[in-house]
Amino acid sequence: MNRHSLSLLAAATLAALAATAAHADEGMWMPKQLPQIAKPLKAGGLALDPAKLNDLTAFPMGAVVSLGGCTASFVSPQGLVVTNHHCAYGSIQYNSKPDRDLLKNGFYATTLADELPAAPGSRILVTVDMKDVTADILNANTVKLTGKARTDAIEATEKKLVAACEADAGHRCNVYAFYGGLQYQLIKQLEIRDVRLVHAPATGVGLFGGDADNWIWPRHTGDYSFYRAYVGADGKPADFSKDNKPYQPKHHLKVASPTTSPLNEGDFVMVAGYPGHTDRHRLPREVDFAFGWQHPKQIETMGEAIDLIKAETANRRDAEIKIAARMQGLQNYFKNLQGQQQSYDGGDVLARKTAGFDAVKTWVKADAKRQARYGADIAATEALLAEREAITRNELLLGFSSPALLQAARQLYEAAVQRAKPDAERKSGYQDRDASRIKANQERLDRRYDEPTDKKSASHFLAKYLAQPADTLNAALLDTLGLKPGMDEAAVRAKLDGFYAGSKLADSATRLAWLGKDVAAFKASDDAFIKAAVALYDDDQKRENRDKELAGKLQQAYAGTMQAVIDFNAAQGRAVYPDANSTLRISFGKVQGRPVGRDGETWTAFTTLRGIVAKHKGPNEAGGEFDAPAAQLAAIKARNFGPYGVKALDSVPVNFLATLDTTGGNSGSPVLNKKAELVGLLFDGTLDAVISDWDFNPKMVRSICVDSRYMLWQMSTVDKTTRLLDEMGVKQ
Amino acid sequence: MNRHSLSLLAAATLAALAATAAHADEGMWMPKQLPQIAKPLKAGGLALDPAKLNDLTAFPMGAVVSLGGCTASFVSPQGLVVTNHHCAYGSIQYNSKPDRDLLKNGFYATTLADELPAAPGSRILVTVDMKDVTADILNANTVKLTGKARTDAIEATEKKLVAACEADAGHRCNVYAFYGGLQYQLIKQLEIRDVRLVHAPATGVGLFGGDADNWIWPRHTGDYSFYRAYVGADGKPADFSKDNKPYQPKHHLKVASPTTSPLNEGDFVMVAGYPGHTDRHRLPREVDFAFGWQHPKQIETMGEAIDLIKAETANRRDAEIKIAARMQGLQNYFKNLQGQQQSYDGGDVLARKTAGFDAVKTWVKADAKRQARYGADIAATEALLAEREAITRNELLLGFSSPALLQAARQLYEAAVQRAKPDAERKSGYQDRDASRIKANQERLDRRYDEPTDKKSASHFLAKYLAQPADTLNAALLDTLGLKPGMDEAAVRAKLDGFYAGSKLADSATRLAWLGKDVAAFKASDDAFIKAAVALYDDDQKRENRDKELAGKLQQAYAGTMQAVIDFNAAQGRAVYPDANSTLRISFGKVQGRPVGRDGETWTAFTTLRGIVAKHKGPNEAGGEFDAPAAQLAAIKARNFGPYGVKALDSVPVNFLATLDTTGGNSGSPVLNKKAELVGLLFDGTLDAVISDWDFNPKMVRSICVDSRYMLWQMSTVDKTTRLLDEMGVKQ
Repeated sequence: MNRHSLSLLAAATLAALAATAAHADEGMWMPKQLPQIAKPLKAGGLALDPAKLNDLTAFPMGAVVSLGGCTASFVSPQGLVVTNHHCAYGSIQYNSKPDRDLLKNGFYATTLADELPAAPGSRILVTVDMKDVTADILNANTVKLTGKARTDAIEATEKKLVAACEADAGHRCNVYAFYGGLQYQLIKQLEIRDVRLVHAPATGVGLFGGDADNWIWPRHTGDYSFYRAYVGADGKPADFSKDNKPYQPKHHLKVASPTTSPLNEGDFVMVAGYPGHTDRHRLPREVDFAFGWQHPKQIETMGEAIDLIKAETANRRDAEIKIAARMQGLQNYFKNLQGQQQSYDGGDVLARKTAGFDAVKTWVKADAKRQARYGADIAATEALLAEREAITRNELLLGFSSPALLQAARQLYEAAVQRAKPDAERKSGYQDRDASRIKANQERLDRRYDEPTDKKSASHFLAKYLAQPADTLNAALLDTLGLKPGMDEAAVRAKLDGFYAGSKLADSATRLAWLGKDVAAFKASDDAFIKAAVALYDDDQKRENRDKELAGKLQQAYAGTMQAVIDFNAAQGRAVYPDANSTLRISFGKVQGRPVGRDGETWTAFTTLRGIVAKHKGPNEAGGEFDAPAAQLAAIKARNFGPYGVKALDSVPVNFLATLDTTGGNSGSPVLNKKAELVGLLFDGTLDAVISDWDFNPKMVRSICVDSRYMLWQMSTVDKTTRLLDEMGVKQ
Repeated sequence: MNRHSLSLLAAATLAALAATAAHADEGMWMPKQLPQIAKPLKAGGLALDPAKLNDLTAFPMGAVVSLGGCTASFVSPQGLVVTNHHCAYGSIQYNSKPDRDLLKNGFYATTLADELPAAPGSRILVTVDMKDVTADILNANTVKLTGKARTDAIEATEKKLVAACEADAGHRCNVYAFYGGLQYQLIKQLEIRDVRLVHAPATGVGLFGGDADNWIWPRHTGDYSFYRAYVGADGKPADFSKDNKPYQPKHHLKVASPTTSPLNEGDFVMVAGYPGHTDRHRLPREVDFAFGWQHPKQIETMGEAIDLIKAETANRRDAEIKIAARMQGLQNYFKNLQGQQQSYDGGDVLARKTAGFDAVKTWVKADAKRQARYGADIAATEALLAEREAITRNELLLGFSSPALLQAARQLYEAAVQRAKPDAERKSGYQDRDASRIKANQERLDRRYDEPTDKKSASHFLAKYLAQPADTLNAALLDTLGLKPGMDEAAVRAKLDGFYAGSKLADSATRLAWLGKDVAAFKASDDAFIKAAVALYDDDQKRENRDKELAGKLQQAYAGTMQAVIDFNAAQGRAVYPDANSTLRISFGKVQGRPVGRDGETWTAFTTLRGIVAKHKGPNEAGGEFDAPAAQLAAIKARNFGPYGVKALDSVPVNFLATLDTTGGNSGSPVLNKKAELVGLLFDGTLDAVISDWDFNPKMVRSICVDSRYMLWQMSTVDKTTRLLDEMGVKQ
């Protein structure tokens, strides 16, 4: 379930790099790369023509959609969409009330009219085009530039391409960098914004196992839910309206028949989805810095943040609830980072990465032409990375230190500054197309801001920051907040007290009103945090420009380095897939257990209904995380397996393991058999293999999927969602 | 670790019955039966002559000893004995003081002089002879008798045989019934009573995993400890004395060399030990009664007893400590019974047992001679069992109802009554040879008696008893205690208050003083519980005689029924091993994982040091049950595996699974390879297979053993017990 939240966090991370498919089953392939891997796809068992996967508008890729952070797919001609329960969680929660607890009891709309609006901001994004725009972005003019000028030129072209693309109403377009800025793609998505909740099982099914089972096998989670896409009478995306009609996708997936297409261990499976971020072929020095300094520091700092939030919200239930979502995100990322670090510390990742990149460098040096082509870029990259590491060392704590209202004020002021310019000249993220997201961001603060916690956190981490060597500290920040090097937490807190007392930004209406004001109004304000934001603006710009200068140089050098990596691999007949970057990818592998489980165990490919009974603890034990519904337990006891029972398992399969290469963002992805029929939904990985985002180990990496037979069994036998089963063409 | 305590409980249960070896690896064989199973033993891989196992005084059987409830073995010519940590637990605890916490830190005597006396009553019992005495017990005179007269005659012969046998000083003798009274054996054991503690690892090794891992796989427990047997200067058993010398056994086991005899999955292993009690071939109606009424009732009642003790001792730490050992026993047996019941309820045991016994009955009826020989006994057995069930139904709650001091008074008075007779005429259990055990029993009460808990428990269960139909209640008990049918708990308690207030038996010295008094003194006493015991005596005798009457009839009929079972199996070429009855047995099988673990897992044959690191939680989490010593963790991290590392595991094996048929009482048993070298110590089974005491399922039954390589690794690398390793002839 955590792959979703991780994907959202990953959006803030550094540029993605390239990876080679060193192992079978490794690789998150771009659709356009499929001709390169047609052979292993056929050898693996794919019964379709691999070329078909290349066409985003044809079956089956046309049926796969993004929810922004999660993946989903159409499963009926009437726009019915299936995804993970944890991906629809916000919408289920949004529609729950104390007297109608949809989270606890589940939800089933018996008619179209009963379908409920999803949480505000919910989107269904259908990728309709991916176009290589490398030549546009890195045009003759741009490639002559370096540093900030190069970054600005790239950004300007991106904005132009996006604006032209979005002229087609109802679409959202973005330019994505691949291979660390070596290639660029313009991706166009139909943006459906009337999304409705159709069906979710009870929490005791959809979230069975809760946090205890998070990242864990054996697993027994019914992690599925249904949305429906609605459009206006003209068939085009529209805001919510009672008069809207179900969207009719050109293609939808068919659920595999349990009798004619039963899924077994060893069977070919593939997954299409939107993996968020991987770091497979980071250079050795980046790996060393990440696991040698940055992650340990983050683990330490996040651990403190978690303890501090717990202490500050103890015995204040409303504060605890307010902070719950952020806390869950923190703890999940914390668990993930710890898992990665543990694998790294116990392994030889760095040695292998070093040997791998040394081979590339040796190959480059062995040939004068290659040395001329790549040598300077490789050397420059290493020097530039050292520069970036120094900045990270200095500024890591700042990310934990800023009062939330100061951050809000900075965004509000930047919006005012940018709004004064013509739309096309504004910074990315501050154009008219971004207005609703800026507003949502400012609104969201309401649901996660607790002043005592925020003040404690800011004081604690600012004091830690001030303990760093004085010559590494940000003078503008110290001046503005009245801080001095070496100040202790109490002294910092005394300084901050004045800002909190002198600002009205905690009030949502006040904050949103600032979205309409101009620069002069900000400069004239006496709100303490607004004044601070204005005072910090010049320094913020200076640091932003410093980063753009570095980014421009890095893009240039890194692209060259990646080209060397790709050419080195090509010389050895190996295709290279780009690191994940939230764009549509295809992975393939097979259903397979794992010879290595906990010490003393191995893992089988499937779990069964028996495991639900064995794990069931009821509502009062283990935080209610193992509370299977009584009706489900009764159906299991009665052995009402119907066509979904598997003889060899003497039960209905619940979850399965597959050798599919996935990461956060893949949550909800349809798992397809060799005929591209839906056999499951991907929803998690295992904690002891999260290092795979950096280092793929085929012995350890397994994706955890909910078996479609379990979903259909639960829907037909227990929840009796007849209308949906009919709509999906499931025989009943 | 619970096999030990279960064996003690089992001693109080009903007569053992016969079982056939329906599966490979099933069977706890008597040494004298080995010629019957020589073929499968050789086929399984035994490299010794199977006939050698027949001789109790030869190698290797001469090295295997009983601790009474646990098994152990000699591992040096100087009487060094290895057993489980949980079997030596009482002695480690006995020698621990707040400033010298041997439990926590472990213990290692660097010289002979440092070895510590084991807990009082500790014995090392070397079986020196097993003799079939069936013809003596069931002599021409006895077989003419029935009912109580038959029971008395059997008991009289037993006493005579035992007295003659024990004329050999330093020996303890007992007659054991096999096949439900079809056969009898007189067993003679050398009784070594100067036992000393030599070495125990820290609790974080010896009890690693604690209750959480009890009955569980994967397991990582270093469940081993060392005793030494001491004898007088004449080489004969003697009480503790500084002048005693180490006992020199004729035979001792040699630990297998990790390099020349490495143990692998699939290897032949055998185990020799003292399994306590099984019920493999109970008749179908006994199975039905046990799982259909008796066990569910016991589970319900024990659950109440546990809750009640918890509530009564909450916030009274000294009461909690006093009751801790009893509580642990209760909870362990409770968990075991629940595990058995769960397997039974989910399976088809009764149907298979019924079909099996129906086949015997059909075979008997098919032949007039057989019908004449067995028919009447089979019919009589079923009727007598029905009689016994009715008594159990009426009286089960009485076992939970009696105030502890009333029970003590009953034993004290019976001792006085019996002491008035010549020794040979006294009841079994009340002869001179039993005096020290009666005294120990009365002393032990001190360490487990808490008046508020005892009174609450007696009131609660007496009220439940009084709620049964009035005509089933014991009139003498009601009269004596002033109770009436249907009385509620408060009313019962009011009656009991007077008894507790009117008795001085809670005082240990007072209680022990009664051991010297005669019947007249009891009759003249005004102690409330002594008076009650005297008043109840006639009824107690009446019920005892009723039970003896039934036992005499049952012995006769049951023996005939078992003979039918044995003959039926013999006709089909199958040997029949008797149910376990705390006598020396041999089981054999192989090292093997299990295809069925938790749902979604399988089990591998070995665990490794990696699992210790993965499970380690330190002293403050999970009740400190996963607290590996720092020195051990450091040695693991440093990969100091020495000769004990196994390449395929990339670690030292810690525990292993084997298809060995064992039960409570086998704890501490040496696990031997095909050359009879020590490869491990048996210490547990798994909860989902405890039903095997009734119904052997080869797919599920595994014994859990500590690998001798882990023991040697820990002793040499971490605990540096050089003297013992030298003594055992381990290369260092």
